[in-house]
Amino acid sequence: MTHWGEDALEWCRTLADRVERAEAGSTGYLSATHHGLHELLIDGLDDAGLSHWRDAAGNLWGRLESDRAEAPVVLLGAHLDTDLDSDPFLGVVMPLLVLRSLKQDAVQLPFHLDLVAFANDDGHRFGVPHLGSMAVAGGWDAGWAKLQDRDDTSLAEAWSRFGLDATRAHRASLQGSPIMAYLETGIEQGPVLETEELPVGIVTALAGTRRFTIEFNGTAGHAGTVPMHLRQDALAAAAEFILIVERVAREHGVNATVGRIESHPGDAEVIAGQARISLDLRSEQDASRDAALSTIWETARLACQEREIEMEWVETRATPAVTCADWLQLELAHAIEDAGLRPRYLVSGTGQDAAAMARLCPVAMLFVRCQGGDSHQGDKAVSVDDADVAGQVLKDWVLRLARPR
Amino acid sequence: MTHWGEDALEWCRTLADRVERAEAGSTGYLSATHHGLHELLIDGLDDAGLSHWRDAAGNLWGRLESDRAEAPVVLLGAHLDTDLDSDPFLGVVMPLLVLRSLKQDAVQLPFHLDLVAFANDDGHRFGVPHLGSMAVAGGWDAGWAKLQDRDDTSLAEAWSRFGLDATRAHRASLQGSPIMAYLETGIEQGPVLETEELPVGIVTALAGTRRFTIEFNGTAGHAGTVPMHLRQDALAAAAEFILIVERVAREHGVNATVGRIESHPGDAEVIAGQARISLDLRSEQDASRDAALSTIWETARLACQEREIEMEWVETRATPAVTCADWLQLELAHAIEDAGLRPRYLVSGTGQDAAAMARLCPVAMLFVRCQGGDSHQGDKAVSVDDADVAGQVLKDWVLRLARPR
Repeated sequence: MTHWGEDALEWCRTLADRVERAEAGSTGYLSATHHGLHELLIDGLDDAGLSHWRDAAGNLWGRLESDRAEAPVVLLGAHLDTDLDSDPFLGVVMPLLVLRSLKQDAVQLPFHLDLVAFANDDGHRFGVPHLGSMAVAGGWDAGWAKLQDRDDTSLAEAWSRFGLDATRAHRASLQGSPIMAYLETGIEQGPVLETEELPVGIVTALAGTRRFTIEFNGTAGHAGTVPMHLRQDALAAAAEFILIVERVAREHGVNATVGRIESHPGDAEVIAGQARISLDLRSEQDASRDAALSTIWETARLACQEREIEMEWVETRATPAVTCADWLQLELAHAIEDAGLRPRYLVSGTGQDAAAMARLCPVAMLFVRCQGGDSHQGDKAVSVDDADVAGQVLKDWVLRLARPR
Repeated sequence: MTHWGEDALEWCRTLADRVERAEAGSTGYLSATHHGLHELLIDGLDDAGLSHWRDAAGNLWGRLESDRAEAPVVLLGAHLDTDLDSDPFLGVVMPLLVLRSLKQDAVQLPFHLDLVAFANDDGHRFGVPHLGSMAVAGGWDAGWAKLQDRDDTSLAEAWSRFGLDATRAHRASLQGSPIMAYLETGIEQGPVLETEELPVGIVTALAGTRRFTIEFNGTAGHAGTVPMHLRQDALAAAAEFILIVERVAREHGVNATVGRIESHPGDAEVIAGQARISLDLRSEQDASRDAALSTIWETARLACQEREIEMEWVETRATPAVTCADWLQLELAHAIEDAGLRPRYLVSGTGQDAAAMARLCPVAMLFVRCQGGDSHQGDKAVSVDDADVAGQVLKDWVLRLARPR
């Protein structure tokens, strides 16, 4: 019997140790630490007698081969972070344990079962998230080679130092290959499962995101000398905007957040001449999100007109919502029921590699309860018991997909 | 005939040149540049045949002596900035020209007429504004000697390098001396005179200020995963606060400003767990200001209760409003009418040395139109024509005070 929970958390700790022992500046996407994590996973795959390879986009793969060489493929994946402030390694570790367990059981599957640890920079280094999964899904953009990080290192240069050739990244694409499904395991990063005391949940959709930087331009002036009715206070306009966002988001059932704000000159005795904020809008339904956006825009436009404030929007991100495949959700629900648990359906509010992979094949996602509502705390985010359930459910899910339907 | 305008602006330029030529780091309160400006003014006083001295608080004085040794004193003063981003030098220059003109006219006044250029750091260096005028008015606080600037230089040390002894600062006090009045000339720093096309105005009162730092504490969370109704968004609470401030200020006829804002962690995809803002409240009537403050506090308290947000206030400044003496305002109005102009009464929204001096004697203030609404632009803030009117009016004002009433 596999001790899913203890094994998983020990693996997570081993990977985390590798990151913690790294020298400053040597972690992150395509770093020495990134290499080191690959080496640890390769050791694990070797020990389990599983084959492995690295693709043209720097993703690490392991495979439990089907005896039918021409069989289709089921992918179990997640991104491999090199930053302890990101998700921990559960999304890569659980699939590794499932492959190992199935290998030990000598199960013959009608599909190749692949583990993929996506090389991902979460957008932190080059500004574009999900680079690894985008390449696999056939969405690699040749222009990304020219992206630069803060030290003016181009993506092409960083790839080259890692032993990769950015001009060949598109070769990682599996477009045209017989990919049956992509299954991702992730930590909820939210409070729903914890609130309802459930260890796991079924993701129905991945929210699409639109993100903006919005600038308000008014007139700076002295706090003591410009009467209230003569002001064009950019910060007051931004404040009104934030409350419009909050109200409209509630009315439309979407998530909308203003998390960043600056005022200029930013002095206690000077009326702000300029304010700049971020706006992040998410929904599992693009239409709801865009309807909320239109209402926010129109309401804010009138408010700013009234205040004689100029408002400028710049869109900085736009990703569509992705729906998880019904049949994959159904089998996952059965696996959860078999574990004696109630299937809880919920939306993933954050971007995931599954969203990139949806352009390639049907996708679905298993959520694991997040302790304290915050997944950004390494191996403390998941309990041994929950990892235990997650491993058992993930393995059962895979076995269910192997049954004739 | 005195060419008030041209002479005044040439003097302003001479003083500004001295600041501009200073080496980096050598301007500011008690700097070499501060010394240099004193030297220039002393030359001007010498050339005009006027006596001069520096007091125990570093203020520079000039005097047109009355032939009656025991005569009371009328003070013409302002602070002498050493920072081109502050008010220009008009408040010191106009009195210098008036003293010089009266000396040339060999006018015999029933009072000594003193020019005082206050050593002032506007609070920039040691955090306490109007140090020079506070000392003269008898409000020196012995504890100030221990104040430190950003380089950990104590006020006592800085005074010592300037040739002053902070333990003797209280000796600059004129408490008990026969001071008839303190008259200040200042640039409006606001749009009223410019809007009404008037070169000068009469200050009725100096607004009192209360200033706060207010912190809102909620719960940080991921923008995608925490539903709107479960949020405790500190930035949304701050936004609601800003609009409450705006509305209540209008209702109570006071000026209220939130100019500074920060959100933490300040990330586009994270709900703010904390927000911090400044609040600046001003009125010429302390009662109105404090009534507005109570309403803001109570309204915001309920709003934060509703949002489950904790709100903390820290008061960082509190100065009472000061009313200008009626009889001084009246004589100023006559002087303005004699110049063929309409007397326009208005409130000074900013702190002035006159506010400190009000604890010593009756005070009043002549405002000069500010070009472009911003006095923080050196010699461009005032036109030659307006300086012309200001000089003529200030001299006439002094002569009117000399008449038997």
